[in-house]
Amino acid sequence: VVAAADCPDRPLAAIDGYALRAESSLGASDYAPLPVRLLSPESPAVPADAVCLRASGAPLPQGADALVPLDQAELDGTRLQLHAAVAPGEHVLERAGEARAGESVLPAGRRLRAQDLALLALLGVAAVPVVPRPRVRVLVLCADQGTDADGPLLAALVARDGGQIGAVEHPPRELEGLAAALVDDGVPADLTLVAGGSGLGPNDPAVPAAIAAGAQLRRGVALHPGETTALGLLRGRPLVLLPGPPLACLVAYDLIAGRILRRLAGGSGELPYACRRLPLTRKIASALGRLEYCRVRVHTEGVEPLAVADGRRLVTAVRADGFVLVPPQSEGWPEGREVTVHLYEPFP
Amino acid sequence: VVAAADCPDRPLAAIDGYALRAESSLGASDYAPLPVRLLSPESPAVPADAVCLRASGAPLPQGADALVPLDQAELDGTRLQLHAAVAPGEHVLERAGEARAGESVLPAGRRLRAQDLALLALLGVAAVPVVPRPRVRVLVLCADQGTDADGPLLAALVARDGGQIGAVEHPPRELEGLAAALVDDGVPADLTLVAGGSGLGPNDPAVPAAIAAGAQLRRGVALHPGETTALGLLRGRPLVLLPGPPLACLVAYDLIAGRILRRLAGGSGELPYACRRLPLTRKIASALGRLEYCRVRVHTEGVEPLAVADGRRLVTAVRADGFVLVPPQSEGWPEGREVTVHLYEPFP
Repeated sequence: VVAAADCPDRPLAAIDGYALRAESSLGASDYAPLPVRLLSPESPAVPADAVCLRASGAPLPQGADALVPLDQAELDGTRLQLHAAVAPGEHVLERAGEARAGESVLPAGRRLRAQDLALLALLGVAAVPVVPRPRVRVLVLCADQGTDADGPLLAALVARDGGQIGAVEHPPRELEGLAAALVDDGVPADLTLVAGGSGLGPNDPAVPAAIAAGAQLRRGVALHPGETTALGLLRGRPLVLLPGPPLACLVAYDLIAGRILRRLAGGSGELPYACRRLPLTRKIASALGRLEYCRVRVHTEGVEPLAVADGRRLVTAVRADGFVLVPPQSEGWPEGREVTVHLYEPFP
Repeated sequence: VVAAADCPDRPLAAIDGYALRAESSLGASDYAPLPVRLLSPESPAVPADAVCLRASGAPLPQGADALVPLDQAELDGTRLQLHAAVAPGEHVLERAGEARAGESVLPAGRRLRAQDLALLALLGVAAVPVVPRPRVRVLVLCADQGTDADGPLLAALVARDGGQIGAVEHPPRELEGLAAALVDDGVPADLTLVAGGSGLGPNDPAVPAAIAAGAQLRRGVALHPGETTALGLLRGRPLVLLPGPPLACLVAYDLIAGRILRRLAGGSGELPYACRRLPLTRKIASALGRLEYCRVRVHTEGVEPLAVADGRRLVTAVRADGFVLVPPQSEGWPEGREVTVHLYEPFP
């Protein structure tokens, strides 16, 4: 965003006070109050040795270059006694103090903060081009007896990462039904997620159904939990097949699907968790050759691994304060080693 | 939230595989495959030396206490050759592995994470009592010439902190009109914010109007920028009068009004910014007796103060990466001193 004009377009009072030429206040103090002429507030200009009341935010009268605060002057009949000297520019928001005409004020790709919106309002910018929220389609294949835990999980994660989804869909858990659901998507989604049935078992239709729907796929990632994740393209747009078990689904979303979504939404793709470097209070042992998502608790003494090998129980991620990622080429780390912790709560 | 029943209520297969009594796999390896009987997938029970196919998430057949992964067994006519031994419990999600009946799974006051929602779904909990989003009323008194920058600013901040607001209101900038607007609020808001006109100037109706509307008020806080902030109670509910200049409005919101809102919304009231400890690349000088909100930029070498004394220009908060708070009893800090930086972007 580039400023079209100087903002403000003339000097403004930054406080409620008496506008004047700074030189007119020279020598004024509590011990030697300086008398000046008080003009009507409507005066368009101030000559030497005169002042004029201005409210904060109002343009300065012609000739004025500073303000004396209300509580540093005293009314004395029709004159005003100044109790303080001010320097040129004091208590003034100078012309172009917020932005100069032609100056770039907000870079492209910026996630707009509250103060950015306020500055845009000051600049008179009523609309800016933004990256639209990516449309995300979420299909969950429930197990026979299963309640759908992945639907609420993914809806919350997609919303957090800037995506918009309609209702979570529950297509039939068989090849033809799922393939038909994948083909039939009305307005094409920017990203399609299928949770469940991504493995190699007899009850796992996600990969063959995606291929039947025309997707190009790679299956299997060196990630634990989350090994059965598959990803590829469906009609040129990203498709991720996520594991059904909720903990593996969470991990595969955050490390793979979420990264795609955060980039589609205009972000960097980085993990959306605050990080801290903390020492391990117990060793982490990890298998070579896969990225390990290790849930941890944060204590005053350091960080405690909760469940390294256990890739099954969702409750480990509920009890944890965050996680540590052990890279594929590492077998883990000893007690006392400082590691990077990704925190579930950004502001603990 | 307390679990009403064991979850899961019986052992489940954690992978696709062959369910069996672990002892039946004793001694199996790639070098010495062990033949076992393959039962029909519908079999309700497995005797010794027999296995039964189970999909991930399905209950184990009676007698089974482990699974052999699909890729560690080979079909050989009607028999199956096991290539690996498994221990009891291996690849099984044990009964009550997520939660035991009567166990507390989520503490009161928790901000629900995606994985918490998934666990609630697994537990069959369809609804939980939550703290409702506080209703916040935002009234902005614009300067004569002014565009409203505080409205967009406060709407974004209130939404970030969990509050809900309707439209930002623009009452007349005079005592009677504002007092009438404060009295007439239909459904009483949980928190009322008035931006602008909080000072002592002739054009500052906020304090007398709030008093006329029946508010009990304290005016003035030792905060820079933001000195003219006033706070109190209107019909028993919090009311904050914020300064009109947008930078001061931002600071007074975050340190005073936002703290109230974040507590009303069930949080701790703490500032919602990630913190880092970083050394100063230049000294900060601050006036004794007031809390100073010093905008800073973060570089690789440390943190640079941007505008310490300048409490006027909003653009300083737009160009900054965060802020440092200098407490009232401090005159500032020398170059090189490590300080706590509050970061505007939580995940840089």
